[in-house]
Amino acid sequence: MKIELNRHSQIPLAKQIYQELADRILSGQFAKGARLPSVRELARTLHVSPVTVSHALEMLENQKLVTRIQGKGTFVYEEAEPPDESTQRSTSFKLPDYLHRAQDVYYNQKTVAINFALSTVDPSLLPTQVLAESLQHLAHHHPDILGTYGEIQGDLELRQAMAQYLTGENIHVSPQEILVTNGSQQGIDLVARSFLGPGDVVFTEEPTYAAAIDVFRSRGATVVSVPVDEDGMRLDALTVMLDRYEPKLIYTIPTFHNPTGRVMSTKRRKALVDLAADMNCLVLEDDPWSEIFFDTTPPPHIKSMDSHGNVIYLKGLSKILSPGCRIGFLVASVHVLNRLITAKTYADLGNPLLNQKVVLPIIQSPQKIAELFTHLRSVLRKRRDFTIQLLERHAHPDLSWTVPKGGFNLWLSLPDGANANDLLAEAEKRQISFLPGSSCYPGDIEWHHFRVSYAHVDEAVLQKGIRELCVVTATYLASLHDRKGNTPLF
Amino acid sequence: MKIELNRHSQIPLAKQIYQELADRILSGQFAKGARLPSVRELARTLHVSPVTVSHALEMLENQKLVTRIQGKGTFVYEEAEPPDESTQRSTSFKLPDYLHRAQDVYYNQKTVAINFALSTVDPSLLPTQVLAESLQHLAHHHPDILGTYGEIQGDLELRQAMAQYLTGENIHVSPQEILVTNGSQQGIDLVARSFLGPGDVVFTEEPTYAAAIDVFRSRGATVVSVPVDEDGMRLDALTVMLDRYEPKLIYTIPTFHNPTGRVMSTKRRKALVDLAADMNCLVLEDDPWSEIFFDTTPPPHIKSMDSHGNVIYLKGLSKILSPGCRIGFLVASVHVLNRLITAKTYADLGNPLLNQKVVLPIIQSPQKIAELFTHLRSVLRKRRDFTIQLLERHAHPDLSWTVPKGGFNLWLSLPDGANANDLLAEAEKRQISFLPGSSCYPGDIEWHHFRVSYAHVDEAVLQKGIRELCVVTATYLASLHDRKGNTPLF
Repeated sequence: MKIELNRHSQIPLAKQIYQELADRILSGQFAKGARLPSVRELARTLHVSPVTVSHALEMLENQKLVTRIQGKGTFVYEEAEPPDESTQRSTSFKLPDYLHRAQDVYYNQKTVAINFALSTVDPSLLPTQVLAESLQHLAHHHPDILGTYGEIQGDLELRQAMAQYLTGENIHVSPQEILVTNGSQQGIDLVARSFLGPGDVVFTEEPTYAAAIDVFRSRGATVVSVPVDEDGMRLDALTVMLDRYEPKLIYTIPTFHNPTGRVMSTKRRKALVDLAADMNCLVLEDDPWSEIFFDTTPPPHIKSMDSHGNVIYLKGLSKILSPGCRIGFLVASVHVLNRLITAKTYADLGNPLLNQKVVLPIIQSPQKIAELFTHLRSVLRKRRDFTIQLLERHAHPDLSWTVPKGGFNLWLSLPDGANANDLLAEAEKRQISFLPGSSCYPGDIEWHHFRVSYAHVDEAVLQKGIRELCVVTATYLASLHDRKGNTPLF
Repeated sequence: MKIELNRHSQIPLAKQIYQELADRILSGQFAKGARLPSVRELARTLHVSPVTVSHALEMLENQKLVTRIQGKGTFVYEEAEPPDESTQRSTSFKLPDYLHRAQDVYYNQKTVAINFALSTVDPSLLPTQVLAESLQHLAHHHPDILGTYGEIQGDLELRQAMAQYLTGENIHVSPQEILVTNGSQQGIDLVARSFLGPGDVVFTEEPTYAAAIDVFRSRGATVVSVPVDEDGMRLDALTVMLDRYEPKLIYTIPTFHNPTGRVMSTKRRKALVDLAADMNCLVLEDDPWSEIFFDTTPPPHIKSMDSHGNVIYLKGLSKILSPGCRIGFLVASVHVLNRLITAKTYADLGNPLLNQKVVLPIIQSPQKIAELFTHLRSVLRKRRDFTIQLLERHAHPDLSWTVPKGGFNLWLSLPDGANANDLLAEAEKRQISFLPGSSCYPGDIEWHHFRVSYAHVDEAVLQKGIRELCVVTATYLASLHDRKGNTPLF
């Protein structure tokens, strides 16, 4: 275990240590009941005073993340008694590593009957038949591609098709300004490993995509979060932060923001581009599903307003075309993209050629793309409406939610003081899961939100699942109310 | 441009700065004729004295990597005059990045008629028809996989088949101890990002696989190189280095070592496992092509001797089965593998499912695997023999080479004092390329070696290419001799 402390940060050292340890515990990287290194050991490794370590452990204890037992040590919290010395996974601390948190994945991998945590689309809505025909065509006419390395930057034909597609999106780029990635996750990672390191600052929305936090933390960067309102990232709040932090990168999901579903206004998009040019920093515009709008067309892409080359546009196809092919694109000016290509060579020497050729016929065909998106919009709008309808009918009056204008997710809020992780534990007992908001906060965690995805499940499952979830929530809130009568919980 | 200096290293700071700048120049990351930051600027950024910077620039100048012009600055070397201020790519220095070198790729991407640099197999030797049938089967019977995310750790069926295959190789592991990666390049990268950071030490063979150096440098690790002899990595030299360095990782390609073709003896393999257990460090055993032996079966895998769980075994399928699918495997004990899985989630959330299913029928069939390897062995042995025959007939008497007992490559040496990069420049004029040895040295570069791959080209091309290469070499050596008469070159 290595903890990269930023001694020039405004964030106190104890808070930094707390956050790192909390990340690992919440990610399941430290097993329940495992013993943490001693205060003395941590103080020595981290070059801080024992008082600072104790303060960090206190914060962990307050959040019920650890249990401290006098004379025995500090243990990762679990309901039961801490296990014997013999069964403790002490080996997991032996070999120091550079891994921080992987919370998104941790929450997504649970096996339950009804999984509202998975923010992916129902496979039956995707054009798998068209892709299967593409497979057959390749098998018959181009088996040679199976024996050929692709270009590191990505297949030229696919980049050409993508440049064409982006032109329709008002992003005017050449194939030289496009890099094919292994899904959008790798896009975020390549940007981070090219431009972020210890001491660098990245601004994100608060909350934001959990796996992006994972990546930024893994680079040792300081993640500073900017609150979100109805119009997306609050640029007034961001501007105030510029007095304290000099961001190297601003990461945003402007359209149907993950997890809240909000849309950044055109005005703010323009202001963000200007601000990035002034600050000479990069903007990473993550666009998983802007095509899936339910009412009006969303505002223009930030990249379409970028005349200085500060904006990197990231488009993934896993959510809206083929998870099985894992294709994403980074789009940036040549002098930025050349570095991302270098990072891609470190990472894997390029995407497999096969998958790039499989999706090609769809990207090349404006008609096929239009059909796909029209279909997804229509079905997912119905599912969104149905979900809202169910909630309106069955939800506890203290549960609130935003109505997303596109995308896959609904953002729900329990009353202040409630904890969505506790609710999740109850829901899982009934074979239902969702993403607790806690994993989406790079800074101070707000525990009372959670995300429900309606894109992965059909209406029958939605009906059963949302009703059940409402019952669990009502029970949880009632128990909370009962306990609150006695002792304050938070 | 960021340079991570290790102030506790035995390597002087000037040397470290020299190496970093040389890496970037040799990788083509700094364009020819581009102006480097000034001495004062570098000294300020790196927190070193101007004298140290000057000393580093002097070393670069001695290697003809830069030109220093009084009153104007330091420029990346090119034959012509440095360009005007206006055409200098000063922007490339503006946005600091964390990219170091990507030399392997730089040398592999040149477009020439006869490419001996590419260490890949002739696609016509691979079972693309069998793979194409697998594609067709998937298209007909399992189009659903195109709409499905795979497991982050990799498809369970594929891991089961691989565990079975490895049992035949005397590596006894369960599917839980296997992680599917996007080619073996990603395998190296995942190990590096899990366990290496600034201040950590990694031991490699000298020379070694160029792209592995790229990755280790990108983590800011100190790469310490261990010389190689007939029996592979010299453990006596390694042991001496243990007095000065505490390695966290030992990276080795024990069988048909890249680039020299050497094989580590069984005795040394055993000793290396013991040493790793004693030192509590990891061994990464990279195995691109141990199946492609020409004479006798190579010694057992290091992983097969590992009883303490220190060895990570890396097997890529791109070289020997399907470059178009880009599948690799990391094999390690569960407590190590769990961290690598976390790193994989940062990197890309898992390989595409499609490709894993495409190669599955071959990995599942011992008979198909045996046919493939028998075929590759027989054809490549002929090509090796033919290459040697051509060299014996046409090579300049000062050119020497090793006879590899397996694998794809021949390692050649010019006389001491010659420079294979200069030879490459001449060869490229005649549309021939190879890998200059300089890219394979993590420490002091030996400039007079180069690597020729015979696996990618058929016998007709070999005949033409090797003869031509011999002519170019003879001309180069003659010119060297002439010039040597006047001034010492090195």
